[in-house]
Amino acid sequence: MTSLSKNKIKYIRSMEQKKARKEHGTFLAEGPKLTGELLGRFPCRLLVATEEWLNKHPEAKAEEIVEASPDELSRASLLKTPQQVLGVFAQPSYELDLNAVRTSLSLALDGVQDPGNLGTIVRLADWFGINDIICSPDTADIYNPKTVQATMGGIARVRVHYADLPAFIRSVNGTPVYGTFLDGENLYTQPLSESGLVIMGNEGKGVRPEVETLIDRRLYIPNYPRGRETAESLNVAIATAVVCAEFRRRAAWR
Amino acid sequence: MTSLSKNKIKYIRSMEQKKARKEHGTFLAEGPKLTGELLGRFPCRLLVATEEWLNKHPEAKAEEIVEASPDELSRASLLKTPQQVLGVFAQPSYELDLNAVRTSLSLALDGVQDPGNLGTIVRLADWFGINDIICSPDTADIYNPKTVQATMGGIARVRVHYADLPAFIRSVNGTPVYGTFLDGENLYTQPLSESGLVIMGNEGKGVRPEVETLIDRRLYIPNYPRGRETAESLNVAIATAVVCAEFRRRAAWR
Repeated sequence: MTSLSKNKIKYIRSMEQKKARKEHGTFLAEGPKLTGELLGRFPCRLLVATEEWLNKHPEAKAEEIVEASPDELSRASLLKTPQQVLGVFAQPSYELDLNAVRTSLSLALDGVQDPGNLGTIVRLADWFGINDIICSPDTADIYNPKTVQATMGGIARVRVHYADLPAFIRSVNGTPVYGTFLDGENLYTQPLSESGLVIMGNEGKGVRPEVETLIDRRLYIPNYPRGRETAESLNVAIATAVVCAEFRRRAAWR
Repeated sequence: MTSLSKNKIKYIRSMEQKKARKEHGTFLAEGPKLTGELLGRFPCRLLVATEEWLNKHPEAKAEEIVEASPDELSRASLLKTPQQVLGVFAQPSYELDLNAVRTSLSLALDGVQDPGNLGTIVRLADWFGINDIICSPDTADIYNPKTVQATMGGIARVRVHYADLPAFIRSVNGTPVYGTFLDGENLYTQPLSESGLVIMGNEGKGVRPEVETLIDRRLYIPNYPRGRETAESLNVAIATAVVCAEFRRRAAWR
């Protein structure tokens, strides 16, 4: 057991920056629930916890474990309300299995900017049994601490990849490619395949033209009642959820 | 036309605080899209915009209009990326029409804490034609600038009320009252009425026991595939969207 040095606090807090995360190949997770879920899934480089938490979790394994007072923890934490435990974990590296994409329902994100939206999408993908999310390089970073927290543990089960989207979509040629558009076809009256790729775009701009041309099934989430004056769009995570829920309802519950 | 004084900047920025919003009976909206939607819907006390925006919108009406340089605007703005226009608007006061609640689909929120979640829920309520949202007093404030921005204009059409929830639910006695629970019945196999009240709870704790006892139809959003190890829950705005989408699908598209 070592103590929480100023250098360690600095290291933990540096996980807010992509550059530092990349340099160390690590990311930060905070709170008993999330940290607990990640322990045993990803190698933990540094685990910092209160005496109470450590006494309750004698099985917790990490390269280095540091007991800290609540005050020390709050100096290291990036949360408004620091929790009893945080961990710095090794970033996993995933191979993208094109065959798995061809035979499952997967998501592709084209420039989703908001870290919270990305985390929420990973969380709902986890709920709806979506194993792979392929992101354009300019999508928010899955290891942004805000994103990690918003996944609520989904990051332990959903594989998030970064790739050139047009090239990736071409590489799974033959897989139905869905997107949502204001001029698309009603989600509820269109046939939906059990496997396929659902593409969601940037919060303001939607999907890029070079991605849009690769979408062969244009969907629309109908508003209610039809023709009523409403917002022009739904939040990207909300739209993703409504589409994924409908795919799964058709496969399992209709 | 007056200039953007330090006092006005202070007044605009004070809209971040609930106390100041209450004192003045106002709230802040920023950006051409949102401000544009609210102008003409709510009385605008103070409109601050660039020369370019004002030239394009000669019809814009407000008690006071101030032309400001981009630099002045950015000093007044609460956004990371200030926009060309912002407005301080009068808070509307709505009467809660119990008869409308009895004959429509409405939402009730029991302690939703996050301002962004509340704004996202108002935005999706707008999309799905839900006119009234009844919030417990400890739910986030609809006039929090983060909430206002997240509604993306939904705040102009959806009426948000604050009330003692158990008393309110009793006052619409006879209306079906729905909630989502991990031990609820499959959303997709349960009968859903066209009108009713859907209650969503706090992000961490769900609905309070005194509200839960008033819920007569317990729903569950099925995960996929069944029995798979996943996150324990969905984000509250995501769950609200999936439930509202299913109510509207049944009414209009099945």
